[in-house]
Amino acid sequence: MDTYEYVKDLCERAAAARGTLAVSSTAERNSALLAIAEALIRECDKIIAKNEKDIALAGENGVPGPMIDRLTLNEKRIHGIADSLKEVVMLSDPIGKGTVSVRPNGLKIMKVRVPLGTVGMIYEARPNVTVDAAALCLKSGNAVVLRGGKEAINTNLALVSLMRTALSGTGISPDVLQLIGDTSRKGSEALMNMRGFIDVLIPRGGKGLIRAVVDNASVPVIETGAGNCHIYIDSSADLEKALKVAVNAKVSRPAVCNAVETMLVHSDVYKSFLPAFYQATREYGLEIRGCDRARAVLSGIKEATDEDYATEFDDYILAVKVVDSLDEAIEHIKKYTTGHSEAIMTEDIGKAHKFCSSIDCAAVYVNASTRFTDGGEFGLGAEIGISTQKLHTRGPMGLDDLTTVKYIVEGDGQIR
Amino acid sequence: MDTYEYVKDLCERAAAARGTLAVSSTAERNSALLAIAEALIRECDKIIAKNEKDIALAGENGVPGPMIDRLTLNEKRIHGIADSLKEVVMLSDPIGKGTVSVRPNGLKIMKVRVPLGTVGMIYEARPNVTVDAAALCLKSGNAVVLRGGKEAINTNLALVSLMRTALSGTGISPDVLQLIGDTSRKGSEALMNMRGFIDVLIPRGGKGLIRAVVDNASVPVIETGAGNCHIYIDSSADLEKALKVAVNAKVSRPAVCNAVETMLVHSDVYKSFLPAFYQATREYGLEIRGCDRARAVLSGIKEATDEDYATEFDDYILAVKVVDSLDEAIEHIKKYTTGHSEAIMTEDIGKAHKFCSSIDCAAVYVNASTRFTDGGEFGLGAEIGISTQKLHTRGPMGLDDLTTVKYIVEGDGQIR
Repeated sequence: MDTYEYVKDLCERAAAARGTLAVSSTAERNSALLAIAEALIRECDKIIAKNEKDIALAGENGVPGPMIDRLTLNEKRIHGIADSLKEVVMLSDPIGKGTVSVRPNGLKIMKVRVPLGTVGMIYEARPNVTVDAAALCLKSGNAVVLRGGKEAINTNLALVSLMRTALSGTGISPDVLQLIGDTSRKGSEALMNMRGFIDVLIPRGGKGLIRAVVDNASVPVIETGAGNCHIYIDSSADLEKALKVAVNAKVSRPAVCNAVETMLVHSDVYKSFLPAFYQATREYGLEIRGCDRARAVLSGIKEATDEDYATEFDDYILAVKVVDSLDEAIEHIKKYTTGHSEAIMTEDIGKAHKFCSSIDCAAVYVNASTRFTDGGEFGLGAEIGISTQKLHTRGPMGLDDLTTVKYIVEGDGQIR
Repeated sequence: MDTYEYVKDLCERAAAARGTLAVSSTAERNSALLAIAEALIRECDKIIAKNEKDIALAGENGVPGPMIDRLTLNEKRIHGIADSLKEVVMLSDPIGKGTVSVRPNGLKIMKVRVPLGTVGMIYEARPNVTVDAAALCLKSGNAVVLRGGKEAINTNLALVSLMRTALSGTGISPDVLQLIGDTSRKGSEALMNMRGFIDVLIPRGGKGLIRAVVDNASVPVIETGAGNCHIYIDSSADLEKALKVAVNAKVSRPAVCNAVETMLVHSDVYKSFLPAFYQATREYGLEIRGCDRARAVLSGIKEATDEDYATEFDDYILAVKVVDSLDEAIEHIKKYTTGHSEAIMTEDIGKAHKFCSSIDCAAVYVNASTRFTDGGEFGLGAEIGISTQKLHTRGPMGLDDLTTVKYIVEGDGQIR
């Protein structure tokens, strides 16, 4: 069986098994999630043993340290994954929610939330995504076909096997949960082209992965994650507040998508603000790359190029530009935004309003850190990704976003 | 300038002009729509003259009669288009609607509806779509790039010129409305690949057009329209009601997507039901193609092939199959459905429930005609198409479906 046929077979099994989810109650799906959480704790050692195999192979293959860290599972992290399953159990079930209206001709039209069907996930070397994504899909009544990174394959096989075993003790068929064992490019390319078998494909990972999926998929895709985020310090900002927020937005966790990559500072305030910012970020070893005016007050920093302004560093690097107006800041952001999160620091309500209406992105902030763009922080519970496209939804995607609608129309012989 | 550059230029103009829509009030957008409606009535004769040119060319090129009918505008039809503009004016404006929550840390998170941005429309030879689509996009704050069928190009150029002139008297830039003058395949292919310039592409037309768009587009697409719809007459049906509904669902307007293409009849009732149905549809000249059991009671009808069951005839042709159970009916529909509209006739509430939960489509009907799947009939007002995909939305798409969401987060220096 070639890779395409193998992946198609997994997708067909998932679709055939979906009926067991369709007829399951919220309580049954929650019980299944709790059974998975218990199994994770019970089989913690086994998973760690498989994970150590992946880590050893990654070490031999020269995988960089930060990636090995993301790949690593230990007892604490596995307990964390089990806890996040319990959080998903607590979330409200979107399935079956909806509206009803009776038309003048007596037709009763119900518009209700139903599962998307089968969700495809392509992601990199973070094995927690394997469990998180499966949990959110199961809770929302979706089958899921997972394709994780090759570095985590032994861990993922163990996790999926454990979850399927847990499901086999419930009314839900284990086949609603599939992992593509072929970690070659062929495996992901086959999944990208399962039109008619996969209802939506969600890539999670670096921009190379997301670009490849968007360019090559024939199934509907939700683009996620790429975050070239900006913070703009206006002349009307409370500079103390601005300093605290800008430092947090850049250095609290620079590798994630909601961290800031470029800071724009109004020309009325940069002479005092930039040196203070530089001082405040010394302890983090932040590298600043700046425009000419920034370099004049921060001696020794590198020049920021157009490429720097377009780059999602995901690291302790920040591009800085001094601008002469809110309009110039807006134009810069419009040019370089990836539509994720953008912030303004200002005490001027008119400027705040103009910034919010002019910038087209998932989340626009006034006087707060871009780091809040997150399903948990927004009160949605766990998220399956952050959509940076406009179709279907935008911003952190929770359970509701894993559903679609269905009209159920009841009549008594009405004709048109 | 080659076609790609030409289309890109139109898209860039649309995007640049979008700001004038973003700052417009509901009242301003409504005034613009009314100005277009007035211009349509005032310039009725001019439009008809241009339309006559298209009709003459179509006649010379041997375009079939039904297509020429769809292409034709007369005074009555133009008044109908103007009336539909007034209906769009009456619809509630979705922009700016949303929810707000205050998080424990004091962050105020607003989730509001915003326009998608620029909508691309590819459609065939119905010039009313030119005005309807423009109206729905303008009302919902979107720029729109239209690419109509080549048969209607003179009419479309006149309509778009008229609409742009009407806009020039308002605060909204005429550039938010663009028509691709190049009606070669290159024109539509360029539009399908305007990633970054077009936020969503909506094809409207026959399945060949929709398939071509889905296969070739790199921009996000909403698949619309293909309707291989079924009606199932269960043994528990009220046969009088069933006859009335089945006849309506097939013959009231067979060329539209919500008309039924296959009728399934339970083996307990087909011997009486099929002859009655046959009699009732004689006056319409309906051609019935059936399975062996259907042919035994309707002598002289052709045999229905698997291909017939898979075909959207859009004509006075119906495939008929006798089935032995609800399960068999569901299996048949699952095999051939295009996810549009499916109906069951039954007085058994348990069977109705099973049918509704088992069939995965935009609209599922109990004891009513599939012909009701329509924005107006569902109470959404005018529709821009009927989505048969699950992402973004499903079923008739109204104004709300031409929007996305944006989070606006207001803080007072919150950090994470």
